[in-house]
Amino acid sequence: MRSSRRGNVDPFIVMDVMEAARAREAAGHRVIHMEVGQPGSAAPEPARTALAEALSHDPMGYTVALGIPALRARIAQLYGEWYNVDLDPARVVVTSGSSGGFVLAFSALFDAGDRVALGRPGYPSYRQILKAMDLQPVEVETTLENRYQPVPGDLDGVDYEGLLIASPGNPTGTMLDKPALSALHDAASARGAAFLSDEIYHGIEYDKPAVTALEISDDVVVINSFSKYFSMTGWRVGWLVVPDELVRQVERLAQNMFICAPHVSQLAALAAIDAREETEANLAVYSRNRDLMWEGLRTAGFDRIAPPDGAFYFYADVSHITQDSVSFAREILEEAGVAVTPGLDFDPVRGGGTLRFSYARGTDDIEEGLARLHAFMKRRGLAQG
Amino acid sequence: MRSSRRGNVDPFIVMDVMEAARAREAAGHRVIHMEVGQPGSAAPEPARTALAEALSHDPMGYTVALGIPALRARIAQLYGEWYNVDLDPARVVVTSGSSGGFVLAFSALFDAGDRVALGRPGYPSYRQILKAMDLQPVEVETTLENRYQPVPGDLDGVDYEGLLIASPGNPTGTMLDKPALSALHDAASARGAAFLSDEIYHGIEYDKPAVTALEISDDVVVINSFSKYFSMTGWRVGWLVVPDELVRQVERLAQNMFICAPHVSQLAALAAIDAREETEANLAVYSRNRDLMWEGLRTAGFDRIAPPDGAFYFYADVSHITQDSVSFAREILEEAGVAVTPGLDFDPVRGGGTLRFSYARGTDDIEEGLARLHAFMKRRGLAQG
Repeated sequence: MRSSRRGNVDPFIVMDVMEAARAREAAGHRVIHMEVGQPGSAAPEPARTALAEALSHDPMGYTVALGIPALRARIAQLYGEWYNVDLDPARVVVTSGSSGGFVLAFSALFDAGDRVALGRPGYPSYRQILKAMDLQPVEVETTLENRYQPVPGDLDGVDYEGLLIASPGNPTGTMLDKPALSALHDAASARGAAFLSDEIYHGIEYDKPAVTALEISDDVVVINSFSKYFSMTGWRVGWLVVPDELVRQVERLAQNMFICAPHVSQLAALAAIDAREETEANLAVYSRNRDLMWEGLRTAGFDRIAPPDGAFYFYADVSHITQDSVSFAREILEEAGVAVTPGLDFDPVRGGGTLRFSYARGTDDIEEGLARLHAFMKRRGLAQG
Repeated sequence: MRSSRRGNVDPFIVMDVMEAARAREAAGHRVIHMEVGQPGSAAPEPARTALAEALSHDPMGYTVALGIPALRARIAQLYGEWYNVDLDPARVVVTSGSSGGFVLAFSALFDAGDRVALGRPGYPSYRQILKAMDLQPVEVETTLENRYQPVPGDLDGVDYEGLLIASPGNPTGTMLDKPALSALHDAASARGAAFLSDEIYHGIEYDKPAVTALEISDDVVVINSFSKYFSMTGWRVGWLVVPDELVRQVERLAQNMFICAPHVSQLAALAAIDAREETEANLAVYSRNRDLMWEGLRTAGFDRIAPPDGAFYFYADVSHITQDSVSFAREILEEAGVAVTPGLDFDPVRGGGTLRFSYARGTDDIEEGLARLHAFMKRRGLAQG
């Protein structure tokens, strides 16, 4: 059987970590999971209840391609609640997770060969989806000094038809404030490039609220999801906000490429938005975990970190310790029983010298994991305490 | 905001019909829905029960990209039960509906500019997904004499890197038997083209069993879904069967482009496979409907039809009555209160002279619809009875 060039995307290195962690658990060891990118909590209880109720009477066939109208309206209302932004529900497109949102947005905006600029380190699937769609990721190297977020100067001399930013970013958790977002939007607009803002971690923010690109301009594409703050990763339901003039094109693409997002997940998502007590309780856990991590990682000797503003990750520069983060992560797993992600998934160039630590699980696990990391680093003479 | 050329896909004409039908119902009229492409029945009861049970204790995060192992194994077993084919579960990829399967398969097989041959009339999204992925649909005109299925001679002189067939087909319901499938597979293989078989309507077959391309060769990509026979359209869960050597490529693409199919839907699908009593009862309804349609449509004067072997559609040549099927469908809706689909979605060239009638709903509706169609055609002097 033939196979495509564009389909020859890179494997996720974290998958090898997860498999090694699984094998270690199967051998009877306890592993602390700081490699995972998803909450340990289930979808909010009201979401599950609403779905269980609907299962008894709703045939749940296809929905319209843009999503259940009540869900689109409720998402639009969220923009008022979260950002004081008045958003027309007609611009909201319910998608099959943010993954489906990226495929839709890229299809609607770019033709084969088009270049999309994005910061490195970044979510690895950006690169791979672009590649799989015959688009060219143009990676812009960001710096610890700039908290691993791109600044307009990084884009000088770079050719691109689209600029994709993420705030809070993965793997760093750092955010772009309004002036920083504006400056990047201005840079993209000046050359007629599309501006895409991945806001999947919005809601999971600590000291200051995240800024949506819609506070800057209507001429943006926002990608979001119920996966993180609403704790619904496996449900595959997210949304796009697109400019008015792009709605019809996105609708037609969605009709053909997806038909609709999962009906069951759309119903659950609608109820999840109002499960504020539960989602805020999850946030309180992340917030407590972040404080513990900030202290614990630095004491353990992982002290080259941009303080994260949101999401549930710390991204540590360990280039003074190793240039082989894959081996280093393996040693941490084997000797400390903590699974962490080598940075190469996020940064193929410098990721040999970085690690990502996730704190999406329960606080007990975080405490235990930090103690293990500290002991491991102490044995190597690298811990501070 | 910029927009892409490839994203400029055609609208579905049936959407206008559905909107007109909705407006008619809102005005207090009863409409018989022969335009819809989905069962009126809900997912099988055991599927809904299994999910309701799981909702209470399973956090339902991401599954592995290829799908829940138990579901992949159960799907593989189905190939033994349905076709007496021994299938390695490792070749089964659970997808976000057959839509997700097409996106994955096309990404894994083809690069920008590659040509994929397919019969016309056919499912409109084939063309549009290909176009949205910067691939070229190469439509091969089929004939009523060949039951609207391509034959190898139709491909003489046609350049293509892939051949996509559908059996039973949409909009015709006709099937390819084993020799016909083999001949097409041979034609594609002779030029090194990939062979893709859309088997989404398998299970809904009447006089003889549908043949899977896996009975011909392992060097094929099969696309299937829980949407039709298992009555789970809105759940967005389907599957691919791919050759061994393509599994890794498809897995990596799935990890990046989809992460996974909806977890809830995968759990429900696993239970649906064993809900044989209910799915066979649905089949008995379609079978009864088909017999009524076969008699009723011809008596009403829609007699230029290739007898369908499966699915739940009749595709009628009405070119002796009209070359404007859109207007004709509108008249049928307004005067008879029956919503039908103009053929132009399926065949942009000849579809001005064809209509698709769906019989996926309850038998009472079918009887009422046929009576209305008969009266409509009689008023025009076109009915036989």
